[in-house]
Amino acid sequence: MEHTRIKELLKSEDFGKEVIVKGWVRTFRNNQFIAINDGSTINNIQAVIDFDNTSDAILKRITTGAAVRVKGNLVESMGKGQKVEIKATDVSIIGDSDPEKYPLQPKKHSLEFLREIAHLRFRTGTFNAIFKVRNALAFAVNKFFQERDFVYMHTPIITGSDAEGAGEMFRVTTLDLNNIPRTENGEIDFKEDFFGKSTNLTVSGQLEGELAALAFGNIYTFGPTFRAENSNTTRHLAEFWMIEPEMAFYELEDNMDLAEDLLKYVIRYALEQCPEEIEFLNNRLLEEEKSKPQNERSELNLIEKLNFVINNDFERVTYTEAIEILLRSKPNQKKQFKYLIENWGADLQSEHERFLVEKHFKKPVILTDYPREIKSFYMKQNPVDANGRQTVRAMDILFPGIGEMVGGSQREENLEKLITRMGEVGIPTEEMEWFLDTRRFGSVPHSGFGVGFERLVLFTTGMTNIRDVIPFPRTPNNAEF
Amino acid sequence: MEHTRIKELLKSEDFGKEVIVKGWVRTFRNNQFIAINDGSTINNIQAVIDFDNTSDAILKRITTGAAVRVKGNLVESMGKGQKVEIKATDVSIIGDSDPEKYPLQPKKHSLEFLREIAHLRFRTGTFNAIFKVRNALAFAVNKFFQERDFVYMHTPIITGSDAEGAGEMFRVTTLDLNNIPRTENGEIDFKEDFFGKSTNLTVSGQLEGELAALAFGNIYTFGPTFRAENSNTTRHLAEFWMIEPEMAFYELEDNMDLAEDLLKYVIRYALEQCPEEIEFLNNRLLEEEKSKPQNERSELNLIEKLNFVINNDFERVTYTEAIEILLRSKPNQKKQFKYLIENWGADLQSEHERFLVEKHFKKPVILTDYPREIKSFYMKQNPVDANGRQTVRAMDILFPGIGEMVGGSQREENLEKLITRMGEVGIPTEEMEWFLDTRRFGSVPHSGFGVGFERLVLFTTGMTNIRDVIPFPRTPNNAEF
Repeated sequence: MEHTRIKELLKSEDFGKEVIVKGWVRTFRNNQFIAINDGSTINNIQAVIDFDNTSDAILKRITTGAAVRVKGNLVESMGKGQKVEIKATDVSIIGDSDPEKYPLQPKKHSLEFLREIAHLRFRTGTFNAIFKVRNALAFAVNKFFQERDFVYMHTPIITGSDAEGAGEMFRVTTLDLNNIPRTENGEIDFKEDFFGKSTNLTVSGQLEGELAALAFGNIYTFGPTFRAENSNTTRHLAEFWMIEPEMAFYELEDNMDLAEDLLKYVIRYALEQCPEEIEFLNNRLLEEEKSKPQNERSELNLIEKLNFVINNDFERVTYTEAIEILLRSKPNQKKQFKYLIENWGADLQSEHERFLVEKHFKKPVILTDYPREIKSFYMKQNPVDANGRQTVRAMDILFPGIGEMVGGSQREENLEKLITRMGEVGIPTEEMEWFLDTRRFGSVPHSGFGVGFERLVLFTTGMTNIRDVIPFPRTPNNAEF
Repeated sequence: MEHTRIKELLKSEDFGKEVIVKGWVRTFRNNQFIAINDGSTINNIQAVIDFDNTSDAILKRITTGAAVRVKGNLVESMGKGQKVEIKATDVSIIGDSDPEKYPLQPKKHSLEFLREIAHLRFRTGTFNAIFKVRNALAFAVNKFFQERDFVYMHTPIITGSDAEGAGEMFRVTTLDLNNIPRTENGEIDFKEDFFGKSTNLTVSGQLEGELAALAFGNIYTFGPTFRAENSNTTRHLAEFWMIEPEMAFYELEDNMDLAEDLLKYVIRYALEQCPEEIEFLNNRLLEEEKSKPQNERSELNLIEKLNFVINNDFERVTYTEAIEILLRSKPNQKKQFKYLIENWGADLQSEHERFLVEKHFKKPVILTDYPREIKSFYMKQNPVDANGRQTVRAMDILFPGIGEMVGGSQREENLEKLITRMGEVGIPTEEMEWFLDTRRFGSVPHSGFGVGFERLVLFTTGMTNIRDVIPFPRTPNNAEF
């Protein structure tokens, strides 16, 4: 490899040294100054052309998007905002880019337009910054758990179980849709399908994670999960990555501590590893908000918001306390909520969560002990309280601008209670004997949670549409590239 | 958290200290010695019961698989093979395990039996060791690439493209199989499907990885991939994890160097991080091989084999050289190969690869420059040689006992050559315009490869069936748990 990456060159002080750089032209000004980017950093290096030794034929081919090789000497830059530049002695074209056809022009493109050319948007500063932050967050997730001796488990993507109950599922099949095999009774004969039964894409690795936690103690998953829901919102994807730790002997408080530690750790890591990228995104957001009326702008800028989260305790509130706050709240009293809170037991809507997080507490909030009826069958049941209310040891972490970042709970470890609850909500136990075995043989208190990774990236980058923080988003009617 | 994990306790020298341990009973001998494991290590801690203060009712419930809490003092152990044990002052049962029903008994179970109870096999020493090694390898993959400034990209799992050509695909759909919508022409109306078109599970993230590499320079994927092939072998899975780096400005030699460095790095990391686990697996393999005739046993034990790989250069050989070796080889001359090598152009079978790796070179081999006709359309074409032979800049890394561990190539960066080749092999370019754009706008030489993660785990653990190194294997007619 004869060339040096631009990230290294921009940090170098070896003035006079001969270097070779390879990258793509971002701009070419005055037939003299090439801004070159090789993806290693959001910053470009400037190469100054040696007129006498560069042919017109080459000059014409230095166009936005073209790949070039530049040899020259590293010199101190006279320009603003850059320490070094290259005094070029030799420029050659590696790959041309027809400026009439290249969709990325040296001007601001809308995020909507860039979504349509997602295969090229990585070549912009904004998306370079977003995916560098995403990369840092992903590594931080693994680093956090490895430092705590958690075992990374790859739970299955294709699942024969449809009892996870977390949402609509995608079918996985090799049956010929033009010639579906039938049993004698005329039903679809899934025995002929690849796995000999009906299979789907997983909505969560939790149940398999529990199996592993009750052997290894502490485990985590980090992999893709799927929801076949027709949600065309800025916060939903049909395919997204989820982090799901599961811990034996953890009770709800331990679970909340771990989740809070994780979120602070990974955001701090991104701030440390990607200071330039986050500053770039901070400025992008300030610029974007300039077009908004004053009262709709954020009180804190992106960097202030990230620092606020890592330096302050999350607010821990029970569902029951939250309902009291909401009942007394101005938007409820003045009937400004679309869904008015009328009594205990109501499911919280996005508007209520936002009120609690953004208006009332002004910080991340951990809501606990939800009514049993609005939560999943596997959550540990609290004793019925003096008012006859039945809650479960759930905990959701709500973030400003994002809503639910984490959903988790202590799990019901009592076999009888679990079977009874499954019966009540209509989950057949026969298909779940493997799951019930964890409560049958050496059952212990345990807990876990799931973090939507793209929501974490959304928060940390200050972006507002989840389609901009995953390389190739999958949403209803969209599976391009 | 009141308890200490056993991994910590076994390293402790705080004799006399009062400790609490929580875990599962592996064995209970003489009504006095409990071997407890909490999954943090393959090793158990021994607790010695205080007879006078432990009721018969408790003693009866200390059975294999039961979860217990033991309080006591850490003391120096008199027994062999352990430094410390716990002189118990208080034992309580957290979760019972009926010894009549618990499938895991304190005896040796076959791997076949354990596969049927994959939800419980994590509780054995063998599977604890395997998944600790898998965990170490997975983290090492990320660490290796992060240290080299590669960007981790999550390429899509659901894909609308079926041109990857790497194998049979699984369909992903939300269509009602009992009522498939049809167009006026009677064809399946995929406009009604979730994504508005026909979609599949990805067989490789390479093509999307190339898009990212031509923006970021160096990227890698590490995620699940799928093959709907009816292969019931000890080396194939329908769902497996793959690592796919892709690098701009890398030529074939750089690509080979990176792949060799990666494999050595991650195996070295596993040896460093999991010495006890690998020693355990080493002994397991020695034990297993005792039942084989002398001439079928491995020349090197597991640890020697791993050290051999990390301390020696891989052999780099062209396909053409390999064919000459095979033509001259004893099994070819004596017609012992099932598929005899008769001339240049033959596709290599597993028996030929094994001969080269295990008999001829006795080390990992990198085979390069295969005939164009037996490789993928996207591989860079070499100039036609003096004999009129057309090869491509492919490289496969073959490992002893495993076969193909890595498959990669330099990519064809020339737009015209690529389009011509796609035409020859029948891949419609219209659906691949996004891919071709990388060659249209700033095309550069680039390379990449894929590593089958489970094959890496198989090699590093010395296991022989790939179903034993992934938590819940998916194979034809099997998607349990």
